[in-house]
Amino acid sequence: MKTIAVLTGGGDCPGLNAVIRGVVRSAVGTHGWRVIGIEDGFDGLLSGIKTRELDLKAVRGILQLGGTILGTSNHGNPLHYPVMEDGEVHWMDVSSQVVEHFNSIGADALIAVGGDGTLKIAQRLYELGMNVVGIPKTIDNDLKATDVTFGYNTAVGVVTEALDRLHTTAESHHRVMVVEVMGRDAGWIALESGISGGADVILLPEIPFSIEKVCAAIRRRRERGGRFSIVVVAEGASALDGEQVVQESANNRRGGVDRLGGIGEQVAGQITQCLDMEVRTVVLGHLQRGGTPSPFDRILGTRFGVKAVDLIADGDFGKMVALRGRSVVSTTLAEAVGSLNLVPAHGEMVQAAEKLGIMLGR
Amino acid sequence: MKTIAVLTGGGDCPGLNAVIRGVVRSAVGTHGWRVIGIEDGFDGLLSGIKTRELDLKAVRGILQLGGTILGTSNHGNPLHYPVMEDGEVHWMDVSSQVVEHFNSIGADALIAVGGDGTLKIAQRLYELGMNVVGIPKTIDNDLKATDVTFGYNTAVGVVTEALDRLHTTAESHHRVMVVEVMGRDAGWIALESGISGGADVILLPEIPFSIEKVCAAIRRRRERGGRFSIVVVAEGASALDGEQVVQESANNRRGGVDRLGGIGEQVAGQITQCLDMEVRTVVLGHLQRGGTPSPFDRILGTRFGVKAVDLIADGDFGKMVALRGRSVVSTTLAEAVGSLNLVPAHGEMVQAAEKLGIMLGR
Amino acid sequence: MKTIAVLTGGGDCPGLNAVIRGVVRSAVGTHGWRVIGIEDGFDGLLSGIKTRELDLKAVRGILQLGGTILGTSNHGNPLHYPVMEDGEVHWMDVSSQVVEHFNSIGADALIAVGGDGTLKIAQRLYELGMNVVGIPKTIDNDLKATDVTFGYNTAVGVVTEALDRLHTTAESHHRVMVVEVMGRDAGWIALESGISGGADVILLPEIPFSIEKVCAAIRRRRERGGRFSIVVVAEGASALDGEQVVQESANNRRGGVDRLGGIGEQVAGQITQCLDMEVRTVVLGHLQRGGTPSPFDRILGTRFGVKAVDLIADGDFGKMVALRGRSVVSTTLAEAVGSLNLVPAHGEMVQAAEKLGIMLGR
Amino acid sequence: MKTIAVLTGGGDCPGLNAVIRGVVRSAVGTHGWRVIGIEDGFDGLLSGIKTRELDLKAVRGILQLGGTILGTSNHGNPLHYPVMEDGEVHWMDVSSQVVEHFNSIGADALIAVGGDGTLKIAQRLYELGMNVVGIPKTIDNDLKATDVTFGYNTAVGVVTEALDRLHTTAESHHRVMVVEVMGRDAGWIALESGISGGADVILLPEIPFSIEKVCAAIRRRRERGGRFSIVVVAEGASALDGEQVVQESANNRRGGVDRLGGIGEQVAGQITQCLDMEVRTVVLGHLQRGGTPSPFDRILGTRFGVKAVDLIADGDFGKMVALRGRSVVSTTLAEAVGSLNLVPAHGEMVQAAEKLGIMLGR
Repeated sequence: MKTIAVLTGGGDCPGLNAVIRGVVRSAVGTHGWRVIGIEDGFDGLLSGIKTRELDLKAVRGILQLGGTILGTSNHGNPLHYPVMEDGEVHWMDVSSQVVEHFNSIGADALIAVGGDGTLKIAQRLYELGMNVVGIPKTIDNDLKATDVTFGYNTAVGVVTEALDRLHTTAESHHRVMVVEVMGRDAGWIALESGISGGADVILLPEIPFSIEKVCAAIRRRRERGGRFSIVVVAEGASALDGEQVVQESANNRRGGVDRLGGIGEQVAGQITQCLDMEVRTVVLGHLQRGGTPSPFDRILGTRFGVKAVDLIADGDFGKMVALRGRSVVSTTLAEAVGSLNLVPAHGEMVQAAEKLGIMLGR
Repeated sequence: MKTIAVLTGGGDCPGLNAVIRGVVRSAVGTHGWRVIGIEDGFDGLLSGIKTRELDLKAVRGILQLGGTILGTSNHGNPLHYPVMEDGEVHWMDVSSQVVEHFNSIGADALIAVGGDGTLKIAQRLYELGMNVVGIPKTIDNDLKATDVTFGYNTAVGVVTEALDRLHTTAESHHRVMVVEVMGRDAGWIALESGISGGADVILLPEIPFSIEKVCAAIRRRRERGGRFSIVVVAEGASALDGEQVVQESANNRRGGVDRLGGIGEQVAGQITQCLDMEVRTVVLGHLQRGGTPSPFDRILGTRFGVKAVDLIADGDFGKMVALRGRSVVSTTLAEAVGSLNLVPAHGEMVQAAEKLGIMLGR
Repeated sequence: MKTIAVLTGGGDCPGLNAVIRGVVRSAVGTHGWRVIGIEDGFDGLLSGIKTRELDLKAVRGILQLGGTILGTSNHGNPLHYPVMEDGEVHWMDVSSQVVEHFNSIGADALIAVGGDGTLKIAQRLYELGMNVVGIPKTIDNDLKATDVTFGYNTAVGVVTEALDRLHTTAESHHRVMVVEVMGRDAGWIALESGISGGADVILLPEIPFSIEKVCAAIRRRRERGGRFSIVVVAEGASALDGEQVVQESANNRRGGVDRLGGIGEQVAGQITQCLDMEVRTVVLGHLQRGGTPSPFDRILGTRFGVKAVDLIADGDFGKMVALRGRSVVSTTLAEAVGSLNLVPAHGEMVQAAEKLGIMLGR
Repeated sequence: MKTIAVLTGGGDCPGLNAVIRGVVRSAVGTHGWRVIGIEDGFDGLLSGIKTRELDLKAVRGILQLGGTILGTSNHGNPLHYPVMEDGEVHWMDVSSQVVEHFNSIGADALIAVGGDGTLKIAQRLYELGMNVVGIPKTIDNDLKATDVTFGYNTAVGVVTEALDRLHTTAESHHRVMVVEVMGRDAGWIALESGISGGADVILLPEIPFSIEKVCAAIRRRRERGGRFSIVVVAEGASALDGEQVVQESANNRRGGVDRLGGIGEQVAGQITQCLDMEVRTVVLGHLQRGGTPSPFDRILGTRFGVKAVDLIADGDFGKMVALRGRSVVSTTLAEAVGSLNLVPAHGEMVQAAEKLGIMLGR
């Protein structure tokens, strides 16, 4: 009988519990193995060892729960970990300590579920001799090695529902509504939910925008009788060099508290200046991460979990599971990390958006 | 054959279209009258006359649409209207002009749908001899004359769904999540959605809060193993006199752009200072107004619309429709306006919340 | 320290877990009592004693779960219980045995959550000297002693959502869609969800219908350009005496399997015969009972649970909690049972429906 | 300026309006063409010519509407059309008449949106010289030429939500719940929604089932403490040869009225006989077709619509649009038709389901 361990790292994401359940039902139920859950991501192998038994009962009823029953952590990166020495903080690679702690719990293999950061750690641990299998998780859909990841579909659903809501209020009040959504590097959430939610303007990190052209587009729309406009802005979008975007709000961030004034507020401020219309800003923030996963994400997370167990059964380590077309396949961790899936600025979907009459800021 | 007119004033609210549809189907379909829709609230009778015909076809498919097909306006208050004279703006009561414009469209009676402001105008017009009937609309549920208004139920639903979502992400990351919701004077949305969404702390306008006690409550919860907390704050909540609440953010508001930093951000800042936990803020804002009305609001809006037509058929003017227990009744506009329905600070629902272990800031 | 027990009887209903959580958080958290959960309704005090400890942890995360964590039973009616004697089944009142079993678990009082049947048993046990408090539960909203019960709002929501869905498919295919919903004696679900979901015809148990008039109404609607119709039928609706309604389908029921062919199918069959239109039937059945409770039901269930604990704290037994207007109050069990809340055939809501142009079968 | 026409054929499907809107916004808004909508599928080119102008205004607000604003028809198959001759009905190929009617409306090209049947007609018309482009539509996801079609994702969502609901009621009452879902030839909806909704047994058309083994699985589950079971049955599932499945219910179908007793009821009947548990059946039927399309389906439908216009702009006729991986591509109509996408009985997803402990009837 094998013993395997599983941990979830990075920002939480709808579908993580589906992965955990898939791992446990396949490993325990079908293979007769034992599964140990490591708590709070790699923290659970660093600042002490925090584990819990994951039997079939432990995963009952979690398929439709958002978040992760194991907890997660954005802090505990063993490749760059704060160690106090001589009264000073040194940032060190403490991977070998993770390996030691991992060995002490008596597991034969580890399934690490996480984004680019977590997968890099997984790759490092694999190089150090650990039996590691990775499962990609990125709510932004910004990983190149898989067609899509779980969580993304749910996030697009949350944003679309919000846009549906904001449409009616924008229309009733003849307003411009600026909606800031997730996406630091990749604008997929903004692009797809913008198409799905009937946005008039979509601003992506991949396409620097001209605020002047945005205003012109809204003005044109108004002249044709459109009495409101919906602008979707990815948090990583930015104006073209040389354009003035109000910057004060960036100074209002406070340690520990999320910045509330971001690119959305800046864009709203600019539109207020160039057009004589009421403008309102909505920052969707954490709403996009939480809640019941969509069926798509439940299924994908489940398949990923089962596939990861398959890889362990085959002794096929250093791999990551991925979706390609209709199939769940595997790829090497080495190939998977560090390669971002950005929105092609002249790809089919961007072109489709422009043919629909959506303004992309250029 | 009678001709009647209908307008919607103030902030938009799920269920307004159900009202309009109820009015039209009853007036046109059953009574054989003609219905004229006045656009953009009282604006449609002030800055020119903006109307549209409302026949049965015009209200098809609108029952489940949020907002109002007639548009609304927060600006056009005829009791206090900006008039240019000698190069200066004077604020004047231009009600008599509204009456004139109204008479010119040839309607026998007006149904005015709106909040306290709109109903006050309606009462004034009634005093000036117009045949007016009012329908109350307040998303905050802050009108005393009716047990409940449409829109409120939908808003509580939106907030509850958001709290459900934020729960899973708060739990996964061991965070304090501060959620700012609507409610300037009355904290009903915060109180009911807080109970419904399993909040740990609820801060209402009616109960000035001690931030120290809030922090103590979260600390106590953490010591008992609760690794996250959900704090719901009504936008009108405020700290007890003498307590320091960070105030800078209030200065960050910009004309035309909604303030993003409000009481929610302030409370989050304070909690960050008194507790060593990650705190995140979410401002639900306009999400609470928009979108498909809940069945409760569709039914109540519909019944209100039908009842208003009944009152006109009976020549019973100067009245407002209201819900009492299971029945839709009428009351005088005079009684209805100016009397707020606040959360009783020691009422049954507040006591129930406290017995559940929810902290109300005192 | 007191020990109290709680059980849930009859058909399941969204909001039962909110009640249980409200009871436990108030009794354990605020009063410092102990709470024992009795499993599977009165079965748990009859065929053996089945209980479980309900501490604060046991009710975590259940607020948004449908059903009841305690289980329920439609069978174990102690007032009419099958006892084998001399090889024959005798139906007997075994209430005294329930009292005995109840005394053996050492609880000071019982909270019984259920419909008319459960409340009658509660009243009987109270007469036998048990400290009983009742909480009404009826998804049909057919209890007179309370303005409304939890579960009903969720059910109306499920039906409305289904009607929204069926509208688009009916319209695309120019069909008549017959939708059978819950309501054996009281037609509230059919009436309210019919209004909310834009039904064209609503058939209630309280108003015997003429199929001829139903067909005439659909024909008239079609002549005016309405290319589809939605007919909502309560399962307890029936045709006027003398009218022929196809009856074979009633004979197709099989023991243990729900009848699939009921009044909905009969009405559909009749419409097919009198009109040359495609007719489809949908039986919503168990979908109406399950799933996440609406905020309204979570709040009402929670308040009921807290109030029941209040009554026990006051030693106020033989009572049932109820909603009146905006307040949760108490009434005697004796008054509460046996008095049905039917739809008044000429009440305000029925009249409103008819003024909207909805056909009620007469 | 070109003039193009668009029609929707076959069963309605969420996302059809997104296609129509995508076609119009791209063709009218970007290319400056004219778009004619043909009503009720090929009926609109057969029994008279029924068209309507589709300008930008005609498609406002339809993105989130289920069904099709153009109407559809299951009857008007021009390859097999009833023609009265000498008092008898002859079934004839009347394609040439469609071509004639089409030519008379002055359109340069036709976009035909539909399933296998519609696409076959499109291919025939193309062979007769018409400029035709096809867009695949199949709610069952049973077309081989595209990775997935719009509508399918929404249907899986509806079924999953129903399973979530039924779970809680099944659990509270310790029942077996049999849920019949769409899927005559292909079991994708049953398989994916079964995985997503946590089903215990899934029966597909592609895997003939043994009712004995189904009963054994449920019995085993019960022995391990699982007090309820969820069985998902595709409408096209069937028992292994030689097994007795109750057949009477099949005889209860009535002309014009949907059969309510189908495979779901049969399976429920069998389980009732072999196990001593309460069994309930729910037939989801038309609920799976209707309602607001999911974001996935809105986006896919929109992209398909835009791509079809691209093909016309390129003069690339006789083609069908399709999704492959992340890209929308084109394929020939000839290749697309007649090739079904069935669930591979030993493919990755079926194996994943079995590793999760789901019973597939074998």
